[in-house]
Amino acid sequence: MPAPNYRDVVDHVMTAVRPYIGEGKVADYIPSLGEVDPNQFGFAVATVDGEVHGGGESKTPFTIESISKLFALALVLSHDDRAIWRRVRREPTGDPFNSLIPLQISKGIPGNPFVNPGAIVVTDQLLRDTGDAYGAIRALLRAETGNPQLHVDAVTAHSEATTGHRDRALAYLAADFGNMLNPVDETLDHYFRQCSIMISCEELARAALFQARHGVRADGSRLISEEDARGVNAIVLTCGTYNAAGEFAYRVGLPCKSGVGGGILAVVPGRCTAVAWGPGVDDKGNSVAAAAALEAFAKLAGLSLF
Amino acid sequence: MPAPNYRDVVDHVMTAVRPYIGEGKVADYIPSLGEVDPNQFGFAVATVDGEVHGGGESKTPFTIESISKLFALALVLSHDDRAIWRRVRREPTGDPFNSLIPLQISKGIPGNPFVNPGAIVVTDQLLRDTGDAYGAIRALLRAETGNPQLHVDAVTAHSEATTGHRDRALAYLAADFGNMLNPVDETLDHYFRQCSIMISCEELARAALFQARHGVRADGSRLISEEDARGVNAIVLTCGTYNAAGEFAYRVGLPCKSGVGGGILAVVPGRCTAVAWGPGVDDKGNSVAAAAALEAFAKLAGLSLF
Amino acid sequence: MPAPNYRDVVDHVMTAVRPYIGEGKVADYIPSLGEVDPNQFGFAVATVDGEVHGGGESKTPFTIESISKLFALALVLSHDDRAIWRRVRREPTGDPFNSLIPLQISKGIPGNPFVNPGAIVVTDQLLRDTGDAYGAIRALLRAETGNPQLHVDAVTAHSEATTGHRDRALAYLAADFGNMLNPVDETLDHYFRQCSIMISCEELARAALFQARHGVRADGSRLISEEDARGVNAIVLTCGTYNAAGEFAYRVGLPCKSGVGGGILAVVPGRCTAVAWGPGVDDKGNSVAAAAALEAFAKLAGLSLF
Amino acid sequence: MPAPNYRDVVDHVMTAVRPYIGEGKVADYIPSLGEVDPNQFGFAVATVDGEVHGGGESKTPFTIESISKLFALALVLSHDDRAIWRRVRREPTGDPFNSLIPLQISKGIPGNPFVNPGAIVVTDQLLRDTGDAYGAIRALLRAETGNPQLHVDAVTAHSEATTGHRDRALAYLAADFGNMLNPVDETLDHYFRQCSIMISCEELARAALFQARHGVRADGSRLISEEDARGVNAIVLTCGTYNAAGEFAYRVGLPCKSGVGGGILAVVPGRCTAVAWGPGVDDKGNSVAAAAALEAFAKLAGLSLF
Repeated sequence: MPAPNYRDVVDHVMTAVRPYIGEGKVADYIPSLGEVDPNQFGFAVATVDGEVHGGGESKTPFTIESISKLFALALVLSHDDRAIWRRVRREPTGDPFNSLIPLQISKGIPGNPFVNPGAIVVTDQLLRDTGDAYGAIRALLRAETGNPQLHVDAVTAHSEATTGHRDRALAYLAADFGNMLNPVDETLDHYFRQCSIMISCEELARAALFQARHGVRADGSRLISEEDARGVNAIVLTCGTYNAAGEFAYRVGLPCKSGVGGGILAVVPGRCTAVAWGPGVDDKGNSVAAAAALEAFAKLAGLSLF
Repeated sequence: MPAPNYRDVVDHVMTAVRPYIGEGKVADYIPSLGEVDPNQFGFAVATVDGEVHGGGESKTPFTIESISKLFALALVLSHDDRAIWRRVRREPTGDPFNSLIPLQISKGIPGNPFVNPGAIVVTDQLLRDTGDAYGAIRALLRAETGNPQLHVDAVTAHSEATTGHRDRALAYLAADFGNMLNPVDETLDHYFRQCSIMISCEELARAALFQARHGVRADGSRLISEEDARGVNAIVLTCGTYNAAGEFAYRVGLPCKSGVGGGILAVVPGRCTAVAWGPGVDDKGNSVAAAAALEAFAKLAGLSLF
Repeated sequence: MPAPNYRDVVDHVMTAVRPYIGEGKVADYIPSLGEVDPNQFGFAVATVDGEVHGGGESKTPFTIESISKLFALALVLSHDDRAIWRRVRREPTGDPFNSLIPLQISKGIPGNPFVNPGAIVVTDQLLRDTGDAYGAIRALLRAETGNPQLHVDAVTAHSEATTGHRDRALAYLAADFGNMLNPVDETLDHYFRQCSIMISCEELARAALFQARHGVRADGSRLISEEDARGVNAIVLTCGTYNAAGEFAYRVGLPCKSGVGGGILAVVPGRCTAVAWGPGVDDKGNSVAAAAALEAFAKLAGLSLF
Repeated sequence: MPAPNYRDVVDHVMTAVRPYIGEGKVADYIPSLGEVDPNQFGFAVATVDGEVHGGGESKTPFTIESISKLFALALVLSHDDRAIWRRVRREPTGDPFNSLIPLQISKGIPGNPFVNPGAIVVTDQLLRDTGDAYGAIRALLRAETGNPQLHVDAVTAHSEATTGHRDRALAYLAADFGNMLNPVDETLDHYFRQCSIMISCEELARAALFQARHGVRADGSRLISEEDARGVNAIVLTCGTYNAAGEFAYRVGLPCKSGVGGGILAVVPGRCTAVAWGPGVDDKGNSVAAAAALEAFAKLAGLSLF
């Protein structure tokens, strides 16, 4: 299959997405998210050959939120840490990302690394492995994006921490079943900060390229094995957009990881990454405009895996 | 990516799978299943170019069971029947295939077409569309395999019908929510027969090639649109092996549909299909040897989608 | 405690209940229930000494529905049949009466004899014990009321049978776990007929007096042991009004068994029974006016157990 | 009904309970509980007329645990605080006392005041009402028992606090739904201390007499209204022994409140209270010996409400 002309594709996506910009509802459980202008939209593609093409507000930083979970997982696996798979499974759950019900039924073993309890367990493991989970994630993102200024939004992190009752409930439930290595407060501090990192579409597309390159970083070094990279892509496809993962696979046909900040990252193994961002999200927490953009992208560029 | 030498791949798979043959437990909820020799194993690959390569008992018929659900779904979609998507969703459920819990919570709308209630609803729709759901499925399989003798095992079908209390419970629960068009007994009669069709690895690999060809049948005619075929492949990947779908995506990286008779079908979009069969299944209903074979197949041939 | 003047109490209850008559929604899942005039109300008290006092439409027959479950349970226990307690537990469930969720979780053992699956299991046992479950219940009701004409409403029974998908689902789920002794259709036939018996407030109050007399029938013979009668009263209090049982215990303080036909029976151990009937039910299936009447009755006569 | 000779009854209970002493498993989730000698047993009856009769280790203090929830609830109601009934319902749940599942389904409104989340909400309300929830409970217990030395076991309270991950999860889940008035840590501090109060059978029987007197304290003043006292007795019967409440109502026939420390309190409205204590508990958290003792007590003294 010849490579598509990504510049043209990006332009076509920008046209196709227009009716969806501003759709959905901006997450407002914390003030700093709710204040974001809902009519923004950005799109970027980064190829394994080094091309980057952007459209709209592709250079505007937004809150990474759950997309950070992909980087935390890769970092844990980079420590050759198969132990994580005794602490979290790899199955889509069919439940909302913050549900305590499956976690109680499974006696504290989260269904996958991308529901909140699974991500908290991954951060807990990364904290044990590195002593500084947030720092490790930030360092990876800085290195892969080439932006040494990339930072947490302190106000958002503080808000997440003070309103994160649900995440605290999930973490204490995991702890009750013996599935937390560090004090709950400590792990959550790192978790809330990793979710509050500010990053743009172009940066995020660059940062995730190691997944398109099957584990190889921007500097040519290997972060994780090819096998692990393929495995992570599989988890992203089956679990990356919560209880809409089946729908995303059906409509987009690519591994996609979303965040409640309105960003969605798609990985095309061996070829490229794409990131769309629109602040308005649907009732499952996925950006309406970004989903439409990635569906158009996969169709226009003929990149569906299926 | 150049095409692998499938003959060699099949031979290597036969070697790799040896330690797993006989593993698992033969489904014995009905006598005709329980009497199958557990030490059998078959494997077959069929390419979109018409090659077929077999290994082991690749010509021995086994009970198709849930793999029939894929054909029922394609047939419903072939009637341009988008209505089915109002009756069943496309999400992995994280629950066992015969659980009533998610069906009650979702008020009678099954999570996807491959859990039992979803498959019953699909057969119910096919019965409405055609007047003979079982007949339609059998006709499709006969045409695609070129085997006009392909038939139901009447003893198995009768046993399924007399012991199928759980499926009856699921169907009546769907009916209670208004999600059955035909009398429950009638739909279930077709459903039990479709599950009792006898088919070999080679036949099944041939029969499913329309999914690898994105909707095009053996005779060149189109069964379903390319878009629908891609969508079905996506559902097969995210939901085809029940609550082990995440694990299959991680380990095999291909859309796989399993049946409790011990068969598993894998689709490689644009390239080929592969079918493995070993009667012993794990506690989720997936054949142990067939799973190992398909994992080896994907790795040896470098066919993971991810 | 001196006996209250029940005649006065009945008259006061009739005054107190007036604002509630016509409240609620008449059950209309089958036509014969939906056609009932919602503005009717009846009340009756029967004492262990043989007094009967009525108010309003206390002689108008209504559909007994779930109140029949009390008589079925007593009859099973009258056969010295402790086996029933291996088939059904005695715990309030906190779930709606027709939920399949707890039944699946408990592997087919219903929580108590008054949720629908529990009642179906009890009828199944009674059918095994007697060969004619419905006949046994009708015979008991005829004997205790002295009304040899007491009968099933055939239209209602037929409607229940043709619309009873949910009950079929429950019964097949129990059967799947091996907790049905008779063919599901046969047991349900008896179950639907027992629920369709027509009976008036005064008749029902008389019929249930054996519970107030701790097991002794109108003719002085013993139906069940004193211990069993006390146990049944306890189950009636903790489970008799479904997932409003706690609220009834709090407000009324007496064992109460309700039916979706709008009747509610209260037992005052050692003293009397009371039956109120108003067709309008709340979202949990309990008559609004009958609940108000029994709350007033318990308060006016000082009969709360607590 | 003439009053039984309680002295004789107590002696008979002591004989009847002998085979059960030492049965069950001492709760050992915190060290101070696990160190208790499992072969102890105490029993006491206190009548509304001022008699107190004890048997065995009836003067040995044990950890009150969940029995404290009854006093917290009465104190909240004593502040004329009907608001509590908007924060917690009055229904048995059918679930384990520490389950998060029903709390999530009901969006943070616990099923009743005696499951852990319900009790935490009650303590939270009492803390708001009084500024010192633990202090209020201790003051009530000191006054009613006449023991000014009655105190918390500081070691137990500390252990509860450091191991109480599940209770923290429940409290944060309630907080997430807006059903906590105070900071979670503060409310839990009072909750853990109230559960760690040391009290003997005789003291506890005296302390709870206001429930037998329908709201009147030892000094003749009224703590709560007669109606509220009856309501609390009803909740104790339907919810006081967790998901064994139906079984207790069936076997004992009295309102019973148990604690994982091995104590069970029974209330006989208008007559007396009884407290049994044996450290070994069953898998639902109820003392095996104490349950047997109270069953014998109710039967020997003829005190079943039913």
